[in-house]
Amino acid sequence: MIRVAVIGASGYTGAESIRIILRHSEAELVYLTALPEECGAVDEIFPQFKGRCNLQIEPLDFDKLRGKADVALCCLPHRVSMEFVPKILDAGLKVVDFSADYRLKDTAVYEKFYEAKHTDKANLEGAVYGLPELFREQIKDADLIANPGCYPTGALLAVAPLLKEGLIETNSIIVNAVTGVSGAGRNPSSKFHFPNMNENLFAYGVGSHRHMPEMEQIASEIAGCDVQILFQPHTGPFDRGILSSVYCQPKGKVSSEKLLKLYQDFYGSEPFVQICSDAPAVKDVAGTNYCHIFVTCAKGKILAFSAIDNLVKGASGQAIQNMNIIFGLDETLGLA
Amino acid sequence: MIRVAVIGASGYTGAESIRIILRHSEAELVYLTALPEECGAVDEIFPQFKGRCNLQIEPLDFDKLRGKADVALCCLPHRVSMEFVPKILDAGLKVVDFSADYRLKDTAVYEKFYEAKHTDKANLEGAVYGLPELFREQIKDADLIANPGCYPTGALLAVAPLLKEGLIETNSIIVNAVTGVSGAGRNPSSKFHFPNMNENLFAYGVGSHRHMPEMEQIASEIAGCDVQILFQPHTGPFDRGILSSVYCQPKGKVSSEKLLKLYQDFYGSEPFVQICSDAPAVKDVAGTNYCHIFVTCAKGKILAFSAIDNLVKGASGQAIQNMNIIFGLDETLGLA
Amino acid sequence: MIRVAVIGASGYTGAESIRIILRHSEAELVYLTALPEECGAVDEIFPQFKGRCNLQIEPLDFDKLRGKADVALCCLPHRVSMEFVPKILDAGLKVVDFSADYRLKDTAVYEKFYEAKHTDKANLEGAVYGLPELFREQIKDADLIANPGCYPTGALLAVAPLLKEGLIETNSIIVNAVTGVSGAGRNPSSKFHFPNMNENLFAYGVGSHRHMPEMEQIASEIAGCDVQILFQPHTGPFDRGILSSVYCQPKGKVSSEKLLKLYQDFYGSEPFVQICSDAPAVKDVAGTNYCHIFVTCAKGKILAFSAIDNLVKGASGQAIQNMNIIFGLDETLGLA
Amino acid sequence: MIRVAVIGASGYTGAESIRIILRHSEAELVYLTALPEECGAVDEIFPQFKGRCNLQIEPLDFDKLRGKADVALCCLPHRVSMEFVPKILDAGLKVVDFSADYRLKDTAVYEKFYEAKHTDKANLEGAVYGLPELFREQIKDADLIANPGCYPTGALLAVAPLLKEGLIETNSIIVNAVTGVSGAGRNPSSKFHFPNMNENLFAYGVGSHRHMPEMEQIASEIAGCDVQILFQPHTGPFDRGILSSVYCQPKGKVSSEKLLKLYQDFYGSEPFVQICSDAPAVKDVAGTNYCHIFVTCAKGKILAFSAIDNLVKGASGQAIQNMNIIFGLDETLGLA
Repeated sequence: MIRVAVIGASGYTGAESIRIILRHSEAELVYLTALPEECGAVDEIFPQFKGRCNLQIEPLDFDKLRGKADVALCCLPHRVSMEFVPKILDAGLKVVDFSADYRLKDTAVYEKFYEAKHTDKANLEGAVYGLPELFREQIKDADLIANPGCYPTGALLAVAPLLKEGLIETNSIIVNAVTGVSGAGRNPSSKFHFPNMNENLFAYGVGSHRHMPEMEQIASEIAGCDVQILFQPHTGPFDRGILSSVYCQPKGKVSSEKLLKLYQDFYGSEPFVQICSDAPAVKDVAGTNYCHIFVTCAKGKILAFSAIDNLVKGASGQAIQNMNIIFGLDETLGLA
Repeated sequence: MIRVAVIGASGYTGAESIRIILRHSEAELVYLTALPEECGAVDEIFPQFKGRCNLQIEPLDFDKLRGKADVALCCLPHRVSMEFVPKILDAGLKVVDFSADYRLKDTAVYEKFYEAKHTDKANLEGAVYGLPELFREQIKDADLIANPGCYPTGALLAVAPLLKEGLIETNSIIVNAVTGVSGAGRNPSSKFHFPNMNENLFAYGVGSHRHMPEMEQIASEIAGCDVQILFQPHTGPFDRGILSSVYCQPKGKVSSEKLLKLYQDFYGSEPFVQICSDAPAVKDVAGTNYCHIFVTCAKGKILAFSAIDNLVKGASGQAIQNMNIIFGLDETLGLA
Repeated sequence: MIRVAVIGASGYTGAESIRIILRHSEAELVYLTALPEECGAVDEIFPQFKGRCNLQIEPLDFDKLRGKADVALCCLPHRVSMEFVPKILDAGLKVVDFSADYRLKDTAVYEKFYEAKHTDKANLEGAVYGLPELFREQIKDADLIANPGCYPTGALLAVAPLLKEGLIETNSIIVNAVTGVSGAGRNPSSKFHFPNMNENLFAYGVGSHRHMPEMEQIASEIAGCDVQILFQPHTGPFDRGILSSVYCQPKGKVSSEKLLKLYQDFYGSEPFVQICSDAPAVKDVAGTNYCHIFVTCAKGKILAFSAIDNLVKGASGQAIQNMNIIFGLDETLGLA
Repeated sequence: MIRVAVIGASGYTGAESIRIILRHSEAELVYLTALPEECGAVDEIFPQFKGRCNLQIEPLDFDKLRGKADVALCCLPHRVSMEFVPKILDAGLKVVDFSADYRLKDTAVYEKFYEAKHTDKANLEGAVYGLPELFREQIKDADLIANPGCYPTGALLAVAPLLKEGLIETNSIIVNAVTGVSGAGRNPSSKFHFPNMNENLFAYGVGSHRHMPEMEQIASEIAGCDVQILFQPHTGPFDRGILSSVYCQPKGKVSSEKLLKLYQDFYGSEPFVQICSDAPAVKDVAGTNYCHIFVTCAKGKILAFSAIDNLVKGASGQAIQNMNIIFGLDETLGLA
């Protein structure tokens, strides 16, 4: 049994990690931690776990961590993570980190978008970007996984085949994405107060969202050249899911049939990516680790649509998929 | 033109009062006030008023108030209201007060349920309970209206004919009500954070809700004897509306037909109460000042259902209905 | 491996049964059937199963069924079920039947509420009511389980300890319940068209819902005497869940503490019933087989609240719990 | 008083037209019609009108229509409208037609996208496209208004200043729009069944939506040259509203400040278009005739966002705005 610690267990991605590990046949929860003011019995903090989990969420103690767990799912916020991760690695655990702290290889970009000095360049270098469909081989041997952002997961899976094959103008990509509200985290705020958010829909972070440089870095890596992406996020009145509608300019003539074939071949053996024959719906992937993709042409442009659950394939599910790979398990355990 | 001040304009009932007055043909907004930290242009605080209202929300200045307005819609919270209302009355305005401070005639009950000493017994005595369908004559001459609570409005309209006619056991009434989330006010909290409240439904305030003694006081007044009510509120995942499902024990034999006739006669000329031939739906009254009621018998009990919009008939609409009555206007102005 | 056939796989309870069996470690789907016009690849009919299940939904062929499956989860509508169940039993399968056809022991009551002659009295007699918390021993040996209705499951679990202990007046029970819309099934209709149902809430089936006699039959069996229940269902704007708010009259003096203790003892070892210290929320049980219960006193009455997922503990989850019991498996397999 | 007939009063745009006219101070409803099977008391078909409107919805009788009404709001579906409109005009009424039948000037395009022969070319020629912000002068003198589609209204208002000023590449426009479900009409269907649509979001009509040629025709007219638009609609889980996120390529250098100034000048005196300093939210315009717009630059592209209520500014509200113009009334009557 893989022994799992969830660091930062009091937020939505923490709860989702707990939910998935609880039904994982070869992993078990051994340690849940959070800030002191957010500690307590897990089934009081999250009543959905009554009768399912009787652990306490405790303040993190590195001495306890050492020897107790094999892997940490580190659900801490940006900037906090890079303070904790070096010590968790020192304690001998593998780490799947949910924050952005180990995603951006260029610390100047990190420091611009996250407004903080990067304090753990040593571990940043060896961190592997945990998108298994693109980087499975590197993930196998990694000690530290930078688990991808929710938006980049959906967007990158939607355009990777086009970038890999060099089919599109690399400065033409527009990603219009809509997330469910769980993406905004568990802290209450006026914007996401039910009577304000219900029956509502709006764009935010216009031209400045932190997931834009992350998308561009990985997209450039896939394409082998500089890729520019205009990424526009929106929030819609539902709990879970991200629908990414991606528009781009083909370099030459393409047909919908060829694109479909390309995507089917590219993702043929992937357990969690499904190529659809029509536009995907977020409800079909809610609560699952699946990504549904549809690609086609219209008006001289390529349109690719992807749907994921932001908390599963966009966070905790993908983290556990990465964990399964690192420990040599069937990649789908706990996620099927 | 009736000149209207909205005191406490930065909350949901303030905004709803503004919305209604904006289309009232014989009343106009002249003064909007709030706590200093909640002041600013009304169309920045409530973007839905862009192009519709260019007033500022300002800190309340009693000197400015005097002579500027004819009536105050006082949307302040419980306990705060009784500090302001005497001064607003002194400034020569009529007051429709949205708080509970002038509803409960027995200050011992008030002090138990609202955990505060009542500091304005002088005005409490003359305050009229502003449920026009039951107290229209007293409202006409009042300077101070205690605008009813949202739950009591729905529940009392549902049972008033039964109480008036003495048809039911007065200790048998159970009011099971479900409110939309706007009833919880504009302040964000964990409970009403969208991902917590969406797709959710729960009971709260079991056995202890503050609207219970209010219902009992008015019900007793209608019945002419002591009435006990078990009131159980719930919150459901929608913006607006209260559905009250009321169960009670008839004293003798009744039939659904007779009950229907009784209700039709009782509310026959009321503009805002509609007797339905089937169970009412909250969506049919959302955004309106109407109350839809259905009454019937089953299993030896009487069942009465009422639907209102908690922010309109349950708050701002009813306040403006009261205002119309006080000033001798057509009662439906701004509300049709 | 238990081999499972889902008969009537094209509706919501069929899909939910498929979802649960897919992650059951000791059961597998072998045969999915539906009416000819609803057949096809399961992942086209339910795109959420893309990559997860590649079975076809086929017209039912009893010859194929024989020897192919060990148990049938029979998700057919009322009246249809009793035509199929005898033949499925004849084919040598155990049956968990989701319809009402084998729940009501008094066929006169059945025929009144379901407006059809009962055509399988032979099997009705031996059918066991599949509420494991109350009838586990009988379930173990049954060939045919009448899986309880969604509303009765929530209501009966909420009041069983009171009935068993004889604590309440048996004609005083009022069950006010609100279901999510999935309870209305998969067929589109005007009432449940999104723009009509969204932001809505209403009562229905006033005094006449078919689950009322079912509740009364089982409640009477638990109490050992005739029990009368006023059951009032409502539909609210959410997908999953039933919140039952139950009101009843105690025979003598009771305290909230004693009631809490009674419930904790009664359900102490039950894996799926959790006694809460506050009112339960439907979102906490959505997607799970759990029932959360809170009991207390107020205004001289007993209030009991229960929350379940109507499609899981109220249908498919409970069916699989029953299946696990019949086959001697750990009762929580696939459901934890 | 302008006497208004609503033709096709049994759908959502019919109901919305009724709602608005009911509070219009210089117009009154005189005649409501629908298909025979959809006729009856308006307050039974739409219970929200109980006590507010006691008209009957009747089968259309052209003899009755003549002399009874001054204007028809014609809420019929595409293809049906062009059979009725000539006769309504013959009866001496002005017509605001909600269908697409008089929008597309090129009947070949109409016939391709609406799959029907155009049978009223005579009236098509003189029909004026009823977007008051762009065509107010022509509207004043028109007998027949082609009321714009909901999507074109939002998209065209968002880009009109850019097109008028020639600031963008005219083949670069991408309109990503999300509508509430009321846009799909009142007929129930599997896609919009509450448990399917709730918590869902998806694209549809990829590359082929009928509003694309309508947008292109009017955009070309504004720009004075051929404009190509890639329009991609989506449906989201809310009742009302369209959020259009528009992306386009500027011809030269532009700044966010200049764009803001351009939009403020362009729409300066328009009562119903509000230029915002941040991305608009659909909830702020729900139930109103307003259009909120935000424009800015990012990553070398221009982004324009608009929010409208699809049933009001996108249908009935705009129709009544047109009606007000035709009859020389204050354009905002009934709509403020």
